[in-house]
Amino acid sequence: MNPEGHQLKTVWEGDETVSMFTPEPYHTAIPGYVYGGLIASLLDCHGTGGAAAAMLRREGRDIGEGEAPRFVTASLQVDFLKPTPLGPELEVRGRIVEITDRKVVLDETLSAEGVVTAKGRVVAVRMPEAMVEGS
Amino acid sequence: MNPEGHQLKTVWEGDETVSMFTPEPYHTAIPGYVYGGLIASLLDCHGTGGAAAAMLRREGRDIGEGEAPRFVTASLQVDFLKPTPLGPELEVRGRIVEITDRKVVLDETLSAEGVVTAKGRVVAVRMPEAMVEGS
Repeated sequence: MNPEGHQLKTVWEGDETVSMFTPEPYHTAIPGYVYGGLIASLLDCHGTGGAAAAMLRREGRDIGEGEAPRFVTASLQVDFLKPTPLGPELEVRGRIVEITDRKVVLDETLSAEGVVTAKGRVVAVRMPEAMVEGS
Repeated sequence: MNPEGHQLKTVWEGDETVSMFTPEPYHTAIPGYVYGGLIASLLDCHGTGGAAAAMLRREGRDIGEGEAPRFVTASLQVDFLKPTPLGPELEVRGRIVEITDRKVVLDETLSAEGVVTAKGRVVAVRMPEAMVEGS
């Protein structure tokens, strides 16, 4: 949930999970625009964080209340709708579309200055025990 | 095609485009494994590079022969099949499944030590003129 120091924090706004992130000048491939790999990373990262938040809520707990279940991404779909300008803070919003004991599906949007520039869908699954070190 | 200094170079092997990349120790979220955002970035980056290579080949040119057409990603689908170990060089392979004047669709695999750990599909489109600075 903290890959490459994105330090993406997720909060609830009603039934939506929300994260904010301001890209750095090096997050570009085409001058002036955010590079697609960062957008995919943010949607991926928000997806596993949102899945953990959803599972906590399902158990009647809030984000930060006790140990969170850990999720990994099973699949990620990103539609790049328009170029994302480099500069403004980006907002990622997630909506839970399916939740079971071991799987959460989220639909996501990424927007800059109120304009949705990318949409995503993440299927997140509980982390396999074999991946949890020291447990 | 060179986001965040991935410096992904693409070559042809028969009908497949191939790129190699060795992750850095910081490309992780879960100790010992490559973080999903990097995998998505590599598939994205190889997708636009592979699309350019495919368009050049269609015009009878090889990679590096004259100016390459530039592509942006319209959509990216990643299926994470199993954890990708952090350490070994990763290989991304692309296969062109559709090509028109303005669009290329590639199916991709990412593997570590001969084991496919992720699959992807990229829809790449010619870069809109508005995004090309100074042209």
